[in-house]
Amino acid sequence: MLVVMKNDATESQVKEVISEIERMGYRGVPMPGAQRTAICIVGNTGPVDDAGLLVLEGVKETVRVTKQYKLVSRETHPQPTTITIGNISIGDGKPVIMAGPCAVESEEQALTTARLVKKSGATVFRGGAFKPRSSPYSFQGLGEAGLKILAKVRDETGLLIVTEAIDENSLELVDKYADIIQIGARNMHNYSLLRHAGNASKPVLLKRSFAATIEEWLMSAEYIISEGNSRVILCERGIRTFSDNTRNTLDLSAIPSVKQVSHLPIIVDPSHAAGKRDYVISLSKGAIAVGADGLLVEVHHDPPHALSDGMQSLYPEQFDELMKEIKGLLP
Amino acid sequence: MLVVMKNDATESQVKEVISEIERMGYRGVPMPGAQRTAICIVGNTGPVDDAGLLVLEGVKETVRVTKQYKLVSRETHPQPTTITIGNISIGDGKPVIMAGPCAVESEEQALTTARLVKKSGATVFRGGAFKPRSSPYSFQGLGEAGLKILAKVRDETGLLIVTEAIDENSLELVDKYADIIQIGARNMHNYSLLRHAGNASKPVLLKRSFAATIEEWLMSAEYIISEGNSRVILCERGIRTFSDNTRNTLDLSAIPSVKQVSHLPIIVDPSHAAGKRDYVISLSKGAIAVGADGLLVEVHHDPPHALSDGMQSLYPEQFDELMKEIKGLLP
Amino acid sequence: MLVVMKNDATESQVKEVISEIERMGYRGVPMPGAQRTAICIVGNTGPVDDAGLLVLEGVKETVRVTKQYKLVSRETHPQPTTITIGNISIGDGKPVIMAGPCAVESEEQALTTARLVKKSGATVFRGGAFKPRSSPYSFQGLGEAGLKILAKVRDETGLLIVTEAIDENSLELVDKYADIIQIGARNMHNYSLLRHAGNASKPVLLKRSFAATIEEWLMSAEYIISEGNSRVILCERGIRTFSDNTRNTLDLSAIPSVKQVSHLPIIVDPSHAAGKRDYVISLSKGAIAVGADGLLVEVHHDPPHALSDGMQSLYPEQFDELMKEIKGLLP
Amino acid sequence: MLVVMKNDATESQVKEVISEIERMGYRGVPMPGAQRTAICIVGNTGPVDDAGLLVLEGVKETVRVTKQYKLVSRETHPQPTTITIGNISIGDGKPVIMAGPCAVESEEQALTTARLVKKSGATVFRGGAFKPRSSPYSFQGLGEAGLKILAKVRDETGLLIVTEAIDENSLELVDKYADIIQIGARNMHNYSLLRHAGNASKPVLLKRSFAATIEEWLMSAEYIISEGNSRVILCERGIRTFSDNTRNTLDLSAIPSVKQVSHLPIIVDPSHAAGKRDYVISLSKGAIAVGADGLLVEVHHDPPHALSDGMQSLYPEQFDELMKEIKGLLP
Repeated sequence: MLVVMKNDATESQVKEVISEIERMGYRGVPMPGAQRTAICIVGNTGPVDDAGLLVLEGVKETVRVTKQYKLVSRETHPQPTTITIGNISIGDGKPVIMAGPCAVESEEQALTTARLVKKSGATVFRGGAFKPRSSPYSFQGLGEAGLKILAKVRDETGLLIVTEAIDENSLELVDKYADIIQIGARNMHNYSLLRHAGNASKPVLLKRSFAATIEEWLMSAEYIISEGNSRVILCERGIRTFSDNTRNTLDLSAIPSVKQVSHLPIIVDPSHAAGKRDYVISLSKGAIAVGADGLLVEVHHDPPHALSDGMQSLYPEQFDELMKEIKGLLP
Repeated sequence: MLVVMKNDATESQVKEVISEIERMGYRGVPMPGAQRTAICIVGNTGPVDDAGLLVLEGVKETVRVTKQYKLVSRETHPQPTTITIGNISIGDGKPVIMAGPCAVESEEQALTTARLVKKSGATVFRGGAFKPRSSPYSFQGLGEAGLKILAKVRDETGLLIVTEAIDENSLELVDKYADIIQIGARNMHNYSLLRHAGNASKPVLLKRSFAATIEEWLMSAEYIISEGNSRVILCERGIRTFSDNTRNTLDLSAIPSVKQVSHLPIIVDPSHAAGKRDYVISLSKGAIAVGADGLLVEVHHDPPHALSDGMQSLYPEQFDELMKEIKGLLP
Repeated sequence: MLVVMKNDATESQVKEVISEIERMGYRGVPMPGAQRTAICIVGNTGPVDDAGLLVLEGVKETVRVTKQYKLVSRETHPQPTTITIGNISIGDGKPVIMAGPCAVESEEQALTTARLVKKSGATVFRGGAFKPRSSPYSFQGLGEAGLKILAKVRDETGLLIVTEAIDENSLELVDKYADIIQIGARNMHNYSLLRHAGNASKPVLLKRSFAATIEEWLMSAEYIISEGNSRVILCERGIRTFSDNTRNTLDLSAIPSVKQVSHLPIIVDPSHAAGKRDYVISLSKGAIAVGADGLLVEVHHDPPHALSDGMQSLYPEQFDELMKEIKGLLP
Repeated sequence: MLVVMKNDATESQVKEVISEIERMGYRGVPMPGAQRTAICIVGNTGPVDDAGLLVLEGVKETVRVTKQYKLVSRETHPQPTTITIGNISIGDGKPVIMAGPCAVESEEQALTTARLVKKSGATVFRGGAFKPRSSPYSFQGLGEAGLKILAKVRDETGLLIVTEAIDENSLELVDKYADIIQIGARNMHNYSLLRHAGNASKPVLLKRSFAATIEEWLMSAEYIISEGNSRVILCERGIRTFSDNTRNTLDLSAIPSVKQVSHLPIIVDPSHAAGKRDYVISLSKGAIAVGADGLLVEVHHDPPHALSDGMQSLYPEQFDELMKEIKGLLP
């Protein structure tokens, strides 16, 4: 349930409403909004009796929330959210392009690739320092050393940094060094990690699990926001199906589906969905045309010698072509 | 295997090669091409011994075909195919828009909708006279009476007609009245019907089964072409997955996948994939941006009163918006 | 809706009810039953007004049918159906084992395999004369010559014959030569063929499409029964999923699911699901333990030299072991 | 690669081999075996040069391991593993039945249910103290208080305890209080948690993710074993598919698939797969007949009043029937 306050409601009236909600055994989360102040009630399992709330000073009305998710819902937050990080804004209508290698391999590799993607127009640099690998014997990333390289990339290029956290320890480090904390598809159901991300200081890029419905994905975003971190960016990266022409089937219908029910921005990762670089440019164009707020693209300065999965990395000249093609689609 | 002829090879040399292929126990299919004449060998189960072919007059070389499908493959036909029907061309870089209701309900309904979609820019009218319905008790279409209405729509509007055939009898009728014969997703594995379509006089729009891989789909196209009808247009319409935000998951990666291995044109049906009209415009834009050669869109002049599945039909004004949005994406 | 007659209702009272249903614009299908006579109303799209029926002589009550399928439903036919063919009964609690090669290759191959599977305890012989092949260049079966071989197998061994029909022509031939008409997974959505099977004289074995829900499968059975052929046996053969350890994922939960809502018998084909002979014995045991009314198993007297897909065919000695293992599970 | 030692190889010869492997830059893991001592080389990315190993004292031969997983593979450990915990053994041919409620709700609920399932023949009690819930607002379990209740259940009934850990903290607690540590389907890809489980003192029950292939599942088991905890029990619990008759599609072919390539025991959870109690008995029988080493079944003394998902919990009398039915299947 959402308690909508009158336009002239005072700070102390809002506090009083929250106190009353707590007396009822629930939690009240104030929802920011230019037009109105509202308080979302969370923690109830059944319908809430709003009689005791409607009589309070400053309360205009109550609105029933029909979905399981509340803080991520358009019902409680009708306007789309724009997330501003440094000099970029995600969700304001202009797509944000994040690009870089699968894994940070060395300072030289990271810097070389970063300079190339910046030149083509990317504003965020991606690169993994902690890699969730299905084999315990595979390269697991450079760890904190990789994060230091990423920080240096930011210092030298001005690109913002997005990189993945895979557990509590790495999350603390990523929160310290990077600009955006990535939670990968395999950890979308890791509720403990989501809670920690909800207490971090940086925005969170939450990838869709390859086996998650839109509702489950939004519930995972709800975990993060319910802990206090409202800056969540969703990222579609393909779902697991019987179809074998791509590594995963990119579900671009996720974009209108998310935008219909949620105010959160959503970007698309065509590289991990396709698994083949030849499809990345056309799928990127499709994502932008469908309405994605940005892209997360794998680019390596020398794909054949990439440490992990070079098959799906774009060559720098392909990324440059991608950026030009996308520009042609924008108004 | 493909037998490539010299540029100056004569008609009779080509015939001699085909005769030799038949003596070897296979079948030789001449492949049209502006640059070269080639003959594709089909019917072999293992490798073919080309010694007896290479010594024939006019033969330049032989090329091994690595895929199970041959006539639909880029290996035997490197240039993309353009299919010209009346005044339209499919596959020439300019998307062809096919629009109309799920089912033909009456002359008035068909004509009203046809005039509206034509005004917005469609060049082909769709509408089912034979409906493959999962329930034997559902409306099964008007049959031949529906085809006569469609023919009248063509006469009055100049729009070409695409409509579905569901068995041998309806295929003969559709071949007689319509301009393009549609084979629906549920009949993509109906090899007997595919063979009949291969002997029809009109081009065939072959939908992907919601459970077919790209390779299986191309094999079904191969059935049609191997019977002699080389004018096949593929149509992606969503695959069955666990995801429940749409009726089926639209697999736009099918476009680059098909174009990489086949010369056939491919269009997209966003309406049946989405199952919800709210997603159709954005998915249509995505399909065009990815590189589709056209769209097949469900439009009804009065969706709430549509006889079948009005939920996914666009309102005429939505279709008009769709056409404008697509125009914005084209160079 | 179901119109339940009184125990002492006369033939002419039943006829009068059917006439009244027809006057209402629907169709009335009498449902056989030891306990009661009932008439199922089909062809209505919305609720039926039963006022005019309840006043007729001999009518006891009306019962609303909640599912889309009616004639296959337990709501209209509460007792499980047993189908008797020659000297066997399917659905009476004792599993019926059908075994034989993928395709009929020659009289010698068929007879050799038939004698072996009979010796181990099979009572029905399977073998394809018409093969639905994904490639137009693959072996398509011996056709009518294959059916004649199957008839000879029956004459010499006493085994009943089940074999697949793939279109109208082959269905007529299969109806003439065989004891059970198989409709394959790829034709489960071929409604035209289902209607023809509904007019055949022999029972129908209806395989589940690898992409069909239980409800869609039952609707396809409804097509057959609504045409007048009530002897339908369902066959689960695996569904298409992301999992790659088997060719398809055998869904044994289909057995309790079908038995809960339908009165039709259901058997299991472990061979086509697994695609690997090593898993067939254990999956067969699972199917019987879950409650399947029988098995359809691929056996070849010489798998490495089988014409089609010998990889999944059991060796005769493996089939013999399978039969012994199953016997150990029965009470 | 596996280095197989001679039968009379000494302890110090084994140590010397491990040292040499480390000098080569890899890790050597001794594999226990009644017949032979062998050392598995892990950490190599390409083929290993075995020249320096074959010349060492006590070395009999080297064997190439063809799979990505090594310690869980039958190639390195040909005999099936039996895991003994207290007075039970998992993997010795006699199925072990684990039963109890979804969540521990109270001492009374846990004890009541435990006494009932023990009476019917269960030897392990299940019940969640830490629940991974898709909504942050759902009941998340009693935490350590729940574990204390479980310990009391063991004290009073003699049943062993299996319960889920969802992060590092809960894993330490579960390791302290329970007998078997459960890693749930949603955490199968949580490699950080798997590593911690590999350092725990108790055996681990590793559920298959609903979107994991058999190979990915075995790789997750490899994570645990590579850290030193070799007592891993696999648990199949259904995969996510398009089919909607059950919550997930139970993949019983996982049993022969796992047993063919791995030595680890595998049990089945029919309750979470089905999501409906009506299917649990028949699926349990199927699992045992296919060859499962045990079952994990949800039972509640009063399902309609269960705190979480009572719909799938068996009533105690149903569980009693299940135990009797299973007994009928055993030799």
